[in-house]
Amino acid sequence: MENKIYDLIIVGAGPAGLGASIYASRYKLDHLVIGSEIGGQVVEAWEIENYAGFEKISGKDLMGKFVKQSEKLGGKIIKDSVNNIVKTETGFKVVGEKTGEYTAQSIILALGMKPRKMNVPGEDRFLGKGVSYCATCDAMFFRGKDVVVIGGGDSAATAAIHLTEFANKVTLIYKDEKVSFEPAWIEQMKANPKIEMICCSNITEIKGDTKVSGIVYEMNGPASTRGEDRSSTRGGEKKELAVQGVFIEVGTFPGAVLAKNLGVKTDDQDYIIVDGTQATSIENVYSAGDIDTSSNKFRQIITAVAEGAVAAGSIYKKLKLKPKG
Amino acid sequence: MENKIYDLIIVGAGPAGLGASIYASRYKLDHLVIGSEIGGQVVEAWEIENYAGFEKISGKDLMGKFVKQSEKLGGKIIKDSVNNIVKTETGFKVVGEKTGEYTAQSIILALGMKPRKMNVPGEDRFLGKGVSYCATCDAMFFRGKDVVVIGGGDSAATAAIHLTEFANKVTLIYKDEKVSFEPAWIEQMKANPKIEMICCSNITEIKGDTKVSGIVYEMNGPASTRGEDRSSTRGGEKKELAVQGVFIEVGTFPGAVLAKNLGVKTDDQDYIIVDGTQATSIENVYSAGDIDTSSNKFRQIITAVAEGAVAAGSIYKKLKLKPKG
Repeated sequence: MENKIYDLIIVGAGPAGLGASIYASRYKLDHLVIGSEIGGQVVEAWEIENYAGFEKISGKDLMGKFVKQSEKLGGKIIKDSVNNIVKTETGFKVVGEKTGEYTAQSIILALGMKPRKMNVPGEDRFLGKGVSYCATCDAMFFRGKDVVVIGGGDSAATAAIHLTEFANKVTLIYKDEKVSFEPAWIEQMKANPKIEMICCSNITEIKGDTKVSGIVYEMNGPASTRGEDRSSTRGGEKKELAVQGVFIEVGTFPGAVLAKNLGVKTDDQDYIIVDGTQATSIENVYSAGDIDTSSNKFRQIITAVAEGAVAAGSIYKKLKLKPKG
Repeated sequence: MENKIYDLIIVGAGPAGLGASIYASRYKLDHLVIGSEIGGQVVEAWEIENYAGFEKISGKDLMGKFVKQSEKLGGKIIKDSVNNIVKTETGFKVVGEKTGEYTAQSIILALGMKPRKMNVPGEDRFLGKGVSYCATCDAMFFRGKDVVVIGGGDSAATAAIHLTEFANKVTLIYKDEKVSFEPAWIEQMKANPKIEMICCSNITEIKGDTKVSGIVYEMNGPASTRGEDRSSTRGGEKKELAVQGVFIEVGTFPGAVLAKNLGVKTDDQDYIIVDGTQATSIENVYSAGDIDTSSNKFRQIITAVAEGAVAAGSIYKKLKLKPKG
């Protein structure tokens, strides 16, 4: 354990954590960033077109720039999982899995989100054997194969588009007619001959022997977007699709276990409740990024970085500008 | 006047307006951006080191990238002053000074702030050559230099304190004995050997050749805080101070005239009041950037862009995802 007491420890090294570090350095806050995945989930994003300043960049490249900038300004970044954060008499103790313990006067929780499971038979069994939660990481293993992407949001859409670079055919299956794809992605998917979209269906099983060989799905709605006859697609009818890959993109949930252990208040969906300064319910604990209630829960790289900046600014005002004694 | 009705008109072409445009394009909102200064106030920043993704970039270059990206994604940007925004039966009419009138279903006010000027000789001439209205942006360029901060409010105090991290000496000059510094600031400034405070003085000139070399100031009151003899500091006596930097912090004001005419609610400092979705008090009118109460009024490029993104996302949900009919 180091003997020093940092002004600030930022837990999480994604856009929010690195954004906070950049501002913490600007404010001369002695701080470190600790996270299990440097760059966070964004490193899995194959192409980003909506972060202002870059017309087109991969998540890995963008996060590489954040890390370099953060370190150049004086930020210290440690790759380690955090097992616990404990309130002490003078501040907080952060317990790293491999690198030991660190203490600080203040904390920014930039914990991000974790992929949600479908909880269907075969999902756990075939993880890494055809089942993946990360198209960017694993697309290349499905060259010439048929794959399915499951989900109705932007991460499903971008996964499907990315997979067409490698796969023979990509079927996108989603639950509701009311999807939340950005219209820009819908346009691109409709124009891509490798992509087929199937609406209004639930996956009931992932099948295979030693690896994935197919999925079973069930129409849940009155009709699919393919204009099929209603009578042939009524609820309950099961269909099979032969695929070698299953990419699950059914959403994420806040990685709030550390926050809950610390006693920070969360809402009924486990998002950390923050005020306009990004302060949580515990003094000197702030939050930034996808995990909290700020920015109208609009979970984007740009909002995460901004929230990190606001949190660092608030801590600076609190720790350094308050009357002494 | 064009006959078409846009989904959205964004008034203001700084980081907030361009950030909103990038997201509006991703959401296929038919929109235009109209502003008198493409890039906004940021184009005046000679070096930016706190926008994540760029270690070092000029405001002009960064805004150039924003504009290019925005246009590439489909945003239409018009350089014009807006004289008025009027509520109509079906939406809003935006009256451009030179290019005519435009109509839209929704509005984002991204009007920004205006620094208050002192209106003294040299102020305009040395802008960016030693004269700055933003200590946070520019402090680091005065490492080891002598600078003066002008102003009697908290922004002047924080500027002075921030500048001591870099500058050799910081002189804070203010007009009245009755200042509005928080006591915490005064305490800190008095305890800081790098800061000297001079009361009761007006700046009459900023001097230099190609860049700032000094200022001329005039005692206006009965005595300075340095306890000088009253007779030696009587009104009208001019003094010179050699400095390389002049930070003018005599206040800013939200460019809120258009908002007020439209009837949008503002707080007692003229900031537009918004909720978490960036919505103002008028339906289908949103706000983003320095001019509003969001992001804890932390006025940074990254927060402005993020607020623009949130506003565009909110409008997309409101106009395009609402139940039809």
